[in-house]
Amino acid sequence: MTYTIGLDFGTNSVRCLIVNTDSGDEHGTAIYEYETGRAGIILDSSDHNLARQNPADYIKGIEVTVKEAIARAKKNDKQFEPSDIIGIGVDTTGSTPIPVDARGMPLNMLVNFKDNPNACAWLWKDHTGYAEAAEITELAAKEHPEYLAKCGGTYSSEWFFSKILHCLRVDREVFDAAYTWVECADYVPAVLTGTTDPKQIKRCRCAAGHKAMFSDSWGGYPAKEFLSKLDPKLGELRRTLSDETLPIDKAAGGLTNEWAGKLGLPKGIPVAMGAFDAHLGAVGSGIAPGKLVKIIGTSTCDMVIWPTDSDLADVPGICGIVDGSIVPGFWGLEAGQSAVGDIFNWFVNYIQPGGASEGSHEVLTEKAANLRPGQSGLLALDWNNGNRTILVDQRLTGLLLGQTLHTKPEEIYRALIEATAFGALTIIDRFEEYGVKINEVINCGGIAEKNAMLMQIYADVTGREMKISRSSQSCALGSTIAGAVVAGKEKGGHESVAEAQAAMCGIKEQTFKPIPENRQVYQELHRLYKQLHDAFGLADYSGTLANVMKKLLSIKEQQQTAIA
Amino acid sequence: MTYTIGLDFGTNSVRCLIVNTDSGDEHGTAIYEYETGRAGIILDSSDHNLARQNPADYIKGIEVTVKEAIARAKKNDKQFEPSDIIGIGVDTTGSTPIPVDARGMPLNMLVNFKDNPNACAWLWKDHTGYAEAAEITELAAKEHPEYLAKCGGTYSSEWFFSKILHCLRVDREVFDAAYTWVECADYVPAVLTGTTDPKQIKRCRCAAGHKAMFSDSWGGYPAKEFLSKLDPKLGELRRTLSDETLPIDKAAGGLTNEWAGKLGLPKGIPVAMGAFDAHLGAVGSGIAPGKLVKIIGTSTCDMVIWPTDSDLADVPGICGIVDGSIVPGFWGLEAGQSAVGDIFNWFVNYIQPGGASEGSHEVLTEKAANLRPGQSGLLALDWNNGNRTILVDQRLTGLLLGQTLHTKPEEIYRALIEATAFGALTIIDRFEEYGVKINEVINCGGIAEKNAMLMQIYADVTGREMKISRSSQSCALGSTIAGAVVAGKEKGGHESVAEAQAAMCGIKEQTFKPIPENRQVYQELHRLYKQLHDAFGLADYSGTLANVMKKLLSIKEQQQTAIA
Repeated sequence: MTYTIGLDFGTNSVRCLIVNTDSGDEHGTAIYEYETGRAGIILDSSDHNLARQNPADYIKGIEVTVKEAIARAKKNDKQFEPSDIIGIGVDTTGSTPIPVDARGMPLNMLVNFKDNPNACAWLWKDHTGYAEAAEITELAAKEHPEYLAKCGGTYSSEWFFSKILHCLRVDREVFDAAYTWVECADYVPAVLTGTTDPKQIKRCRCAAGHKAMFSDSWGGYPAKEFLSKLDPKLGELRRTLSDETLPIDKAAGGLTNEWAGKLGLPKGIPVAMGAFDAHLGAVGSGIAPGKLVKIIGTSTCDMVIWPTDSDLADVPGICGIVDGSIVPGFWGLEAGQSAVGDIFNWFVNYIQPGGASEGSHEVLTEKAANLRPGQSGLLALDWNNGNRTILVDQRLTGLLLGQTLHTKPEEIYRALIEATAFGALTIIDRFEEYGVKINEVINCGGIAEKNAMLMQIYADVTGREMKISRSSQSCALGSTIAGAVVAGKEKGGHESVAEAQAAMCGIKEQTFKPIPENRQVYQELHRLYKQLHDAFGLADYSGTLANVMKKLLSIKEQQQTAIA
Repeated sequence: MTYTIGLDFGTNSVRCLIVNTDSGDEHGTAIYEYETGRAGIILDSSDHNLARQNPADYIKGIEVTVKEAIARAKKNDKQFEPSDIIGIGVDTTGSTPIPVDARGMPLNMLVNFKDNPNACAWLWKDHTGYAEAAEITELAAKEHPEYLAKCGGTYSSEWFFSKILHCLRVDREVFDAAYTWVECADYVPAVLTGTTDPKQIKRCRCAAGHKAMFSDSWGGYPAKEFLSKLDPKLGELRRTLSDETLPIDKAAGGLTNEWAGKLGLPKGIPVAMGAFDAHLGAVGSGIAPGKLVKIIGTSTCDMVIWPTDSDLADVPGICGIVDGSIVPGFWGLEAGQSAVGDIFNWFVNYIQPGGASEGSHEVLTEKAANLRPGQSGLLALDWNNGNRTILVDQRLTGLLLGQTLHTKPEEIYRALIEATAFGALTIIDRFEEYGVKINEVINCGGIAEKNAMLMQIYADVTGREMKISRSSQSCALGSTIAGAVVAGKEKGGHESVAEAQAAMCGIKEQTFKPIPENRQVYQELHRLYKQLHDAFGLADYSGTLANVMKKLLSIKEQQQTAIA
């Protein structure tokens, strides 16, 4: 028996997973909640756009979780030996760039930057660089439209250069102290493989391609001349960014003796190149051409792959189309919704509806499940955290329409779920409009596993069967797959990602099929959603919305009559 | 010393007020909460449009409250004698028509209709007749546009004929058993003056003119031929409606011996013609040309008067323009918002935000008061119960825009208050667009008295000083004024409404003046409100709304910067 380790660095915690490379069976797992800030996130009450993390939490998390996962694996299976672990894979959030000094040290680990949030990791959901994102988009649209073509036409405030340029603008001291900036997905493998010289840190294809406008077709990262126009200092940074990036079937290096000793693992076992959690989650969910993987959490990522030897249009509004970013040999296409679970959490935790005992996710879900589509007369936009796909506009906000003096919390809760389903359909429609046919939808993440009502609504709204990934830790499973591929077949691993997926992935038995009469109502509601979407999201909308409220009422009455 | 009694029949209770006719000083008051239904309203859980009342509650309320108010007046002032009471005035909700048989008996008091809601009083906020309202509007627009010109161009589902026609359509038995239908405002004086023959029941100018298309200029109520086209049975009802209607300075008759005995009042004292609560509330608040009276409760009424000998345009979207409906000798103009306090009550009672201890009106108000205009980035439409003025469309619904993952209950609470303020401004603007200049705004009702934040927001949004009526029972005070006028100067009353107002009304010392920097922000927000208002309310809107979300954000940032 051989095993690999997957390390999955999420928004609030890191998880370690040990799986059998033949079956994908999980032998041990452990979680470490980051200690710094609020649920692991450094916030600023005066600026809701700010979200940072302490890289020290990542390092501590490796040690705590790997040791604990090994202990559990031993307990679960007397035969298990840590010496049978043959490789490690890593996935992280992103774009989560970290400013590091010339010794590869994150700046916030230095005394003089200790409590400075700008010296920390800039978490994916940090939006402080929204003005810089607009600036980058504007310049690229004018001078290098090709930079934007593969990332949906708009450079996001969540991405690498927006954050770095914002730091340069607001905290020159931190910017100047940074030799370079590395993605969390590159930082963790560098730590494990002992790569302290930042010139030597290997950059993963996934982060560079999706968030930093990297493409082999224009020689890697954006040209120095382009970055210099944004700011000469940013241009200077260009030389610290390597010209090569690597996919997950390549190793970042071997595990250092020091880490091997500390963790009780074999020395020198390969550590795969990192990738974003969603990308490895897609791998762990069995992504293949024609299969959309939806990773549903606080936000969603919607992942598709497409053979690099086939024609593929630039799909507008998709966050990225990058060669080899998910599976080597395929374009990785990434779309997503900026908030899904976070919207439901907002309603429950911030609005705290329903009084003392009626406002939990469980109670609201139970009550909302008794409603028929359209019965509440409510319609919402799922933009409480902006819109990633297809509008690529993080600053958009939420909308709720149709409330009366009788509207109840569970009706709003369901309307918010439906709004995210309409957002999901918008992404599927966009893929298909540009020739990327979606034959199958596989969901993963806690919400997909736990909330049957949500999955049924997604099936009814999209008109597609919803399947759920077998593993409840698909991202970490994807990392173990990367670990198995870099270990190689000879050592007990696998020759390719597809071979590893065939052995290690699966689908749950229960699936959710569209219910025709619900589908029909949701088709009507979707037309109204689209009107709102376009009216508030597109600058050139020219319709009237006067029909929207009335049409909702007629659907509501029709559904109430259907009950009676 | 002489005194008059005001009986104020509200939505949930009836109040009796005894005041001194020289000073307006309140000598005794009492309230009776209606016993039937939920807070006095008969509801139907399967039809939110239905709202009825039990007329027996009105009768019982007279006896309970008059006796108790007299007892309190005696207790407060040893000199007080019930024999010094010289007149009675009555105000009620409306349009609240009651089907009565040939002996003037409300049908639900008959055994065979006892539990039939259609045989009860159809409360003002009953919207079951919305389809009939549309039918009446359509026919009138085609054949008698003059019928609609004075009531804003649209006949409402809340009004007299919509309700009667709906009853005819859904409950023929009740319709056929009714000799006629009388407004609550006419029913109560008829009871007190012993008018059992429905042919003799006097109809008040206020209800007939504002809710039943009555005008001397076309011979009273709508023509039989017109009503017959809606339904021949409705045409037959026309003969039961008198050709004359009377304003509040005319008496419905004298108090019967039986009632005088039961209540301990002098026999035969005059009972004034009734009027709607808002209309007598306007009188009690000191209405005069150029003075807008806003009666702010669950909904609002916005009342203006204008000399009948001056030119006045038909103001579109105003609920009614009726000669003598408020003060004899003046056009009474009535506008209103379908929900104000009811929207805040919905948020607190239905959504129950803020967890166990944070969701009361008091706590939400306290927290919301610390916010600056625009700081939340939220904007709402105040249409949770439809829009009375200026869109005259009861079926419109609410809207909330701008919510993020950080939006808090108090921010929504404030946005809802601001929405009602924008609705209030829309009414003032409409009056002025059509030449009805508003020089002064006097508010009355519990919300105006208790919620200083709301009054300040209204001042800031409208750019006008907000004054508050001195009496906290302005409607009942208006009724005592009517009682004083029908009693006449000789008996210790007054010669005219204006003379009585000069003696009996006043304004509170504290007023609310617009704060210039708030006013400026609200002017920006009002432009956005107007875009939403027009986009969702007007059929021919042709703008784009794409700017609305972004403009809200820029105001939000500007306001947050102002704090820092």
